[in-house]
Amino acid sequence: MNQEIREKLMGVSVATLATALYKRGLRNQVIQGVHPVGWKGRNMVGPAFTLRYMPAREDRNQLTEFRNPDHPQRVAIETCPEGHVLVMDSRKQANAASAGDILITRLMKRGGAGVVTDGGFRDAATIAGLDIPAYHTRPSSPTNLTNNEAIAINEPIGCGDAPIFPGDIIVGDADCVIVIPAHLAEEVADEAVEMTAYEDFVLERVKEGEAIIGLYPCTKDEHKRAFETWRRQNDR
Amino acid sequence: MNQEIREKLMGVSVATLATALYKRGLRNQVIQGVHPVGWKGRNMVGPAFTLRYMPAREDRNQLTEFRNPDHPQRVAIETCPEGHVLVMDSRKQANAASAGDILITRLMKRGGAGVVTDGGFRDAATIAGLDIPAYHTRPSSPTNLTNNEAIAINEPIGCGDAPIFPGDIIVGDADCVIVIPAHLAEEVADEAVEMTAYEDFVLERVKEGEAIIGLYPCTKDEHKRAFETWRRQNDR
Amino acid sequence: MNQEIREKLMGVSVATLATALYKRGLRNQVIQGVHPVGWKGRNMVGPAFTLRYMPAREDRNQLTEFRNPDHPQRVAIETCPEGHVLVMDSRKQANAASAGDILITRLMKRGGAGVVTDGGFRDAATIAGLDIPAYHTRPSSPTNLTNNEAIAINEPIGCGDAPIFPGDIIVGDADCVIVIPAHLAEEVADEAVEMTAYEDFVLERVKEGEAIIGLYPCTKDEHKRAFETWRRQNDR
Amino acid sequence: MNQEIREKLMGVSVATLATALYKRGLRNQVIQGVHPVGWKGRNMVGPAFTLRYMPAREDRNQLTEFRNPDHPQRVAIETCPEGHVLVMDSRKQANAASAGDILITRLMKRGGAGVVTDGGFRDAATIAGLDIPAYHTRPSSPTNLTNNEAIAINEPIGCGDAPIFPGDIIVGDADCVIVIPAHLAEEVADEAVEMTAYEDFVLERVKEGEAIIGLYPCTKDEHKRAFETWRRQNDR
Amino acid sequence: MNQEIREKLMGVSVATLATALYKRGLRNQVIQGVHPVGWKGRNMVGPAFTLRYMPAREDRNQLTEFRNPDHPQRVAIETCPEGHVLVMDSRKQANAASAGDILITRLMKRGGAGVVTDGGFRDAATIAGLDIPAYHTRPSSPTNLTNNEAIAINEPIGCGDAPIFPGDIIVGDADCVIVIPAHLAEEVADEAVEMTAYEDFVLERVKEGEAIIGLYPCTKDEHKRAFETWRRQNDR
Amino acid sequence: MNQEIREKLMGVSVATLATALYKRGLRNQVIQGVHPVGWKGRNMVGPAFTLRYMPAREDRNQLTEFRNPDHPQRVAIETCPEGHVLVMDSRKQANAASAGDILITRLMKRGGAGVVTDGGFRDAATIAGLDIPAYHTRPSSPTNLTNNEAIAINEPIGCGDAPIFPGDIIVGDADCVIVIPAHLAEEVADEAVEMTAYEDFVLERVKEGEAIIGLYPCTKDEHKRAFETWRRQNDR
Repeated sequence: MNQEIREKLMGVSVATLATALYKRGLRNQVIQGVHPVGWKGRNMVGPAFTLRYMPAREDRNQLTEFRNPDHPQRVAIETCPEGHVLVMDSRKQANAASAGDILITRLMKRGGAGVVTDGGFRDAATIAGLDIPAYHTRPSSPTNLTNNEAIAINEPIGCGDAPIFPGDIIVGDADCVIVIPAHLAEEVADEAVEMTAYEDFVLERVKEGEAIIGLYPCTKDEHKRAFETWRRQNDR
Repeated sequence: MNQEIREKLMGVSVATLATALYKRGLRNQVIQGVHPVGWKGRNMVGPAFTLRYMPAREDRNQLTEFRNPDHPQRVAIETCPEGHVLVMDSRKQANAASAGDILITRLMKRGGAGVVTDGGFRDAATIAGLDIPAYHTRPSSPTNLTNNEAIAINEPIGCGDAPIFPGDIIVGDADCVIVIPAHLAEEVADEAVEMTAYEDFVLERVKEGEAIIGLYPCTKDEHKRAFETWRRQNDR
Repeated sequence: MNQEIREKLMGVSVATLATALYKRGLRNQVIQGVHPVGWKGRNMVGPAFTLRYMPAREDRNQLTEFRNPDHPQRVAIETCPEGHVLVMDSRKQANAASAGDILITRLMKRGGAGVVTDGGFRDAATIAGLDIPAYHTRPSSPTNLTNNEAIAINEPIGCGDAPIFPGDIIVGDADCVIVIPAHLAEEVADEAVEMTAYEDFVLERVKEGEAIIGLYPCTKDEHKRAFETWRRQNDR
Repeated sequence: MNQEIREKLMGVSVATLATALYKRGLRNQVIQGVHPVGWKGRNMVGPAFTLRYMPAREDRNQLTEFRNPDHPQRVAIETCPEGHVLVMDSRKQANAASAGDILITRLMKRGGAGVVTDGGFRDAATIAGLDIPAYHTRPSSPTNLTNNEAIAINEPIGCGDAPIFPGDIIVGDADCVIVIPAHLAEEVADEAVEMTAYEDFVLERVKEGEAIIGLYPCTKDEHKRAFETWRRQNDR
Repeated sequence: MNQEIREKLMGVSVATLATALYKRGLRNQVIQGVHPVGWKGRNMVGPAFTLRYMPAREDRNQLTEFRNPDHPQRVAIETCPEGHVLVMDSRKQANAASAGDILITRLMKRGGAGVVTDGGFRDAATIAGLDIPAYHTRPSSPTNLTNNEAIAINEPIGCGDAPIFPGDIIVGDADCVIVIPAHLAEEVADEAVEMTAYEDFVLERVKEGEAIIGLYPCTKDEHKRAFETWRRQNDR
Repeated sequence: MNQEIREKLMGVSVATLATALYKRGLRNQVIQGVHPVGWKGRNMVGPAFTLRYMPAREDRNQLTEFRNPDHPQRVAIETCPEGHVLVMDSRKQANAASAGDILITRLMKRGGAGVVTDGGFRDAATIAGLDIPAYHTRPSSPTNLTNNEAIAINEPIGCGDAPIFPGDIIVGDADCVIVIPAHLAEEVADEAVEMTAYEDFVLERVKEGEAIIGLYPCTKDEHKRAFETWRRQNDR
């Protein structure tokens, strides 16, 4: 993805993006139920690269399976393009792990922009300390083979009840993760930057004692003018 | 699938099959949470043909979408081979329909052996009256577009937390639906027929007042001999 | 409500109405999770009259409370206008009852058009035999005081995650219950009658062996013409 | 248990019993989430005999385990006293069976008064046809070994979040199952018979058009007198 | 509310208050499932001011709706009296936000004593840094319009399955939030202060190696005497 | 338990142990849904001592019940052997507490190695600061009497859907808690130490840029040799 869009998305919140998508009729783009494995202090931004899990059948999911060089979980880690976010459809099952610290470290080394599962990670305490954003529902120590078989790479999937198409732009902040359809990324990034400027202005005013009605959203000319002045003064 | 195997599987219960698979280390082959939409009085048996749903994105799931001749839900109905069971991964979401009476009628006319979803059907009361076995979690009137987008045909999927590979043998009775891995179908069918004979014998004996211990399972020679006699007498 | 609209709505399915509302951008109008307490063989149709429950506080919900002539549950039963459907927001809690056979019998005698709760009824087996449609999630014998306090009559409420405003038109069939916003009732009823005609035509054709694509929805002129002929022949 | 109490409890509803216990401060005695496996047309009544399940550990729950003559599930079936209700704490897990048709048939033959699980039965369609009341949450074909190990007989347990002590009186009707603490059985049975008489009187009056307020519960002298007359006339 | 009661409640735990209410027969006064959005190191105490949400209907919940100066969510923020706690019945739905940082900042500026929702807040990371106690179930970025319509102010509501009447006293600590019925606030505050003194004494003794039985609760005279001495020495 | 085994288990992760048990066919030994109440920076290790809760019946669970010196909850705290982990089967119910700070402090003083509940603790913020590992699902202020009655000590139980037999070895780390069957403790501890050495080696290599396939698990001779060298160099 375009570096300029990436930078814009680094500076806005998932809440603001959710509102921008809501205006466009998209109401279910937030990946429900996930949170940061140790908030890294900066947004996660990148195009989605996907891994799909299905329920595990015992005969296909013995530990020896990991010796298979074509095992999709391992292949996903080794082929996720630099700057992309690996998104895993773990069927909202956190009773076993989606991945652990070794794989996530490898993804970090390969330049992955982040990782999201609607299941849970093992070695979560270690992952919390890695320099790559990760999101899950809760720590989960059992090997993924217990519940889930990695079955397909870069298909359209669901994650936390949100639709993910490969290449959609994933943005995570301290609260949540959202999916921006690829074709909307640029306009939504632009709009979110604008919205953020206004929200920052509003927050300042509210801290000074201003009431919300008429200010948020803006329905009064005086606020419009004050905002224009504020933008100039703050170079926004 | 082989007609002989089909006939064997028409005469055994899902419970017996579950035990036969349990012996082989397969513990999660029952599709959890589904029941017959009007029990048709005979088992559903056939190889799986699959349809995968993902979460619906609003811009891709307008009603006009059904005008698309390549819409996977419609294509699945029109391409499911005769004698096969259409199994839908509806992500265990029954808030909107997986299909309705018109599509299921069409599937029936095309010779489908049955249909299973881990979501719900609309027009369920009508489907209950059709001459094709159908299984779901509950009736659900909203169009599938509300929640789910049909995205892929004949991939490996999950349904009710069970793993389904295309071609696996699906068997449904009045209680439940089970998935027999294709390569085990013959041996499991044979074994289930044997087990059913013994269970029928046991049930007769229990109705006559026999105690369970030693009889079920059989650990006494006298029961072994009595069973052999019973088989000859009953031509089993 | 207008008798003509009522009759139209008696003859269409909730599924068809859900699609008509979906076209208008309303996706969550089906009351999730409820089913008929003994299907009465005819649709339930009427404007909503509502009762709201809140969590019960023990000191306010002793059995003596029922001696209070102003207890909102009892008042709701005695004031629900003839032809209306009493809709109860039971907070999706079925661990205690929303009402029992005596109250529902009284509602029937007073001319109520039906009753819906997103909780459960006690004496459900008796209610199943009454000549009034009733919908709930499951039978529940404990008195409502255990969990829920009836607190307000004819406010806007939620029921099974659907929004209900007093006067909205409620329609229930063998599968589900739907809420039609009052201002849309007429146009949706009309459209649903039209859609039903086409669906009946389609079902006939499908039973005769016709494929779905192009027919449902109608994208081919030949089907349009065939439908026009069918309508004339069948007086639809 | 006393035959007189049993007969009284055969003639009252679980709803009425729930109210009688509610008066005594007992609010959670209904076994939540269970329903009849084929309603047998008469109440289930008897003292509780219990079986407790715990999560299954794979090495202790191979099929060979059933060959153990001391397996608690089998022993429970063979030792449950005549006239008792076997109540199973299946940890509200219905993904595998609590028991199947052979065991329930044996329990019936041994004079069991009924069986309840907060899990599910396999062979439920067959159990529905047996002459013994049975209650569960849903049919479930996998063998109990899959999820649950039978571990203890006749301990205090939970079932459907209700507390069960061995010897408590269990009553099931078409809707629900309730647990009457042993020491309250007589007084509650008596009171429920009285309450049922009044409720039957009320239902008759309501069917004749009487309003509820003042009648149910009775707060008017006229109703008190009318009820006395009705009792005499109906020999209640 | 009385400043003296407020101060007493600032110094006791929700656990202690729960026990004091339990003695009075009130068992469900803890708001289930919520936790602090960044623990602020001091209790939240104040009378309840309530906001009720209902399921959102799409046509009534467009973004333009926020331009309405009478929108109940905004009005609630601007009218919640100083020193009160704003309690939101979000129907236990955290898939969309109950409010965000701008509104909570405004509430703080207006002197609100805190805010509780049984849904989730957007901008939760920012709210965690504000000088006002806030409790929710999890961060949630989508605008409230997605799921919930603010419909009524200062009605009796449920929150986290607890009953809330306007004016009830809300107390939150690092663990949980509890609702004290208004008429019990004074006596419960007094009793909780007493209980806290004893619990502090007990904790000291236990840390010194004392056993619990006989000490907690106090059933031995020696502990009674020791406690009296301790109170004098510690000025409690 | 043997001090040497304890030390080995102090140095390995629950994830590694889960894999070692998985190899032995044990897939459900992780206690699902619990996390540390304030991670204490070191593993919790010790044999299980158990407490079983059942649903509370109101007449048996008044506050006065705590005055009973034989109350099983209090007795469990006072009899749990030194070095053991107290594991509570709270039926996965966190609506009321399993225990509070006073009892956990007493357990700590008595030399308990830790405490686990599949419910929640009251006074969790205080427990987080104690020098004893504790695991639960969430803070919960109501007294345990509200929901649960302590009924039996040192029976086999379930906790978080895992099977616990008294004497099984419990290990908790920053992520999860696992149950090692007593007879496997030694061999699993040994194997986990070996696995940990290899995983540490792998993590180092991956941080240096090595790819995963062939390295984890080890399928290449070069990695085997490199690991041997690394062990010698690092004295592992």
